[in-house]
Amino acid sequence: MIDHPRDALTFPLSESQTLDPYVPPTPDPEYPTLHVTLTFATSLDSSLSLAPGTQTALSGLASKSMTHYLRSKHDAILIGVGTAVADNPSLNCRIGGVGGYGGKGLKGQPRPVVLDPRGRWEVNNESKVIKLAKEGRGKAPWVIRMTNAKEENAREKEKVLKAVGGDVFIVPSECSSASESMSRIDWSNIFSLLTAKGIRSVMIEGGGGVINDLLHPQNFGLVDTVIVTIAPVWLGKGGVQVCPDERVEEGVRIPVGRLRDVKWVPLGEDVVLCGRP
Amino acid sequence: MIDHPRDALTFPLSESQTLDPYVPPTPDPEYPTLHVTLTFATSLDSSLSLAPGTQTALSGLASKSMTHYLRSKHDAILIGVGTAVADNPSLNCRIGGVGGYGGKGLKGQPRPVVLDPRGRWEVNNESKVIKLAKEGRGKAPWVIRMTNAKEENAREKEKVLKAVGGDVFIVPSECSSASESMSRIDWSNIFSLLTAKGIRSVMIEGGGGVINDLLHPQNFGLVDTVIVTIAPVWLGKGGVQVCPDERVEEGVRIPVGRLRDVKWVPLGEDVVLCGRP
Repeated sequence: MIDHPRDALTFPLSESQTLDPYVPPTPDPEYPTLHVTLTFATSLDSSLSLAPGTQTALSGLASKSMTHYLRSKHDAILIGVGTAVADNPSLNCRIGGVGGYGGKGLKGQPRPVVLDPRGRWEVNNESKVIKLAKEGRGKAPWVIRMTNAKEENAREKEKVLKAVGGDVFIVPSECSSASESMSRIDWSNIFSLLTAKGIRSVMIEGGGGVINDLLHPQNFGLVDTVIVTIAPVWLGKGGVQVCPDERVEEGVRIPVGRLRDVKWVPLGEDVVLCGRP
Repeated sequence: MIDHPRDALTFPLSESQTLDPYVPPTPDPEYPTLHVTLTFATSLDSSLSLAPGTQTALSGLASKSMTHYLRSKHDAILIGVGTAVADNPSLNCRIGGVGGYGGKGLKGQPRPVVLDPRGRWEVNNESKVIKLAKEGRGKAPWVIRMTNAKEENAREKEKVLKAVGGDVFIVPSECSSASESMSRIDWSNIFSLLTAKGIRSVMIEGGGGVINDLLHPQNFGLVDTVIVTIAPVWLGKGGVQVCPDERVEEGVRIPVGRLRDVKWVPLGEDVVLCGRP
């Protein structure tokens, strides 16, 4: 029996097999493409947390293990800056057997990517993700900016990141279209960058802004798989909701997006919805 | 083989057995109590419909059949006036074998109850629920008011209802407490009325106002069973959302309500969540 660290998680084989049709396929070295998985956990009233800037424990241990299993199947995890600031997240994979959790090197550890358009994330040596990188229990983070931040501490933050093997990348900001309905973030630029850097699969975990932006019809086609965990709880008004902007076609409101190839997997008290846009 | 009308629905035995722990128990004639089931269908972003006053087809045929199976297990169905006005609903049970759909009399047909505090529902001989009552395919509706409406057409509407065997009841309005957090509707008065009229189980189907009010901690304890169907679709902003008022205890926001005894039942493309408050 392999001796895993005490904080390692396990995800039963029977349950992982249920999810396997939805994990990224083995990449074809001749055709470098990016598999995009959008994943998050909500309450029954579609909230990620009770209020902006707070973290709310929604799903159970089984769902948490599933998230870490999914992380082990992706080259990178991407979150928005709001989540990085609010949660100080670990962004590593704690499934027993991956690098740092019973395995060698950083095998099975995804690359943490923080989408931080205007350089808001105050990453420093106390940030969990930096500490874990130093301890060899997670990869060093990449930060994606959209403006070449001029602030005093931008260089300081870059130094912190690069000292553990991380990096900062700048992608072109805003869409060229002036249309109000256009998304602020040009996701194809971000995905092109990741592909160019050798990433073949990315799991996008939140927060609300990033999720709602990707559910927008303009971006939804860029997503390959959606995995949503729903907990049997109502958080009530004022929460951070997954609720994309309305969609109007020819003057008529229509649903924003529907999933196909749907599978619902009960997991502890929660349910996991797998599907494709 | 029994010959059912062409519009009759069927719900497979295997699936009905899965739900049976959540249907109302056989009433005890010595202790008249009321079993309250709260049931509705939402999108992933917790909307009942795309906009107020519109009906949105969310769930599939299997979920529809389940709703009619559940109706056959209840003495009454209750909806709020907004739904009655917007949907002109049938409020009967179309499972093959019940009265009017292959069965005798009105056996298995629930009593439609419209909660219409201020007498807004313009029920007339063209209302579906009145037509179905005339055709022997559903029971005649009861209307519950909270004010003794003085409008000209109140007597006219009462005549329409009574002509098919329906009725109008008045319950005391508003709570005595002046607290703003108190619900407008005193549900215990409504449930007492139904119990006094011989109803032993009621299935509350919507709309948004009624559901959010019953999910409020003040009322949630009056509910015995919750059955929510979730369709794998996002409707987007502006929909009629199930999202109860926030709950604050000792200055701290906490989840409004959590279900226990949870069971998730995949049904077609949808999932059905059964639980108890």
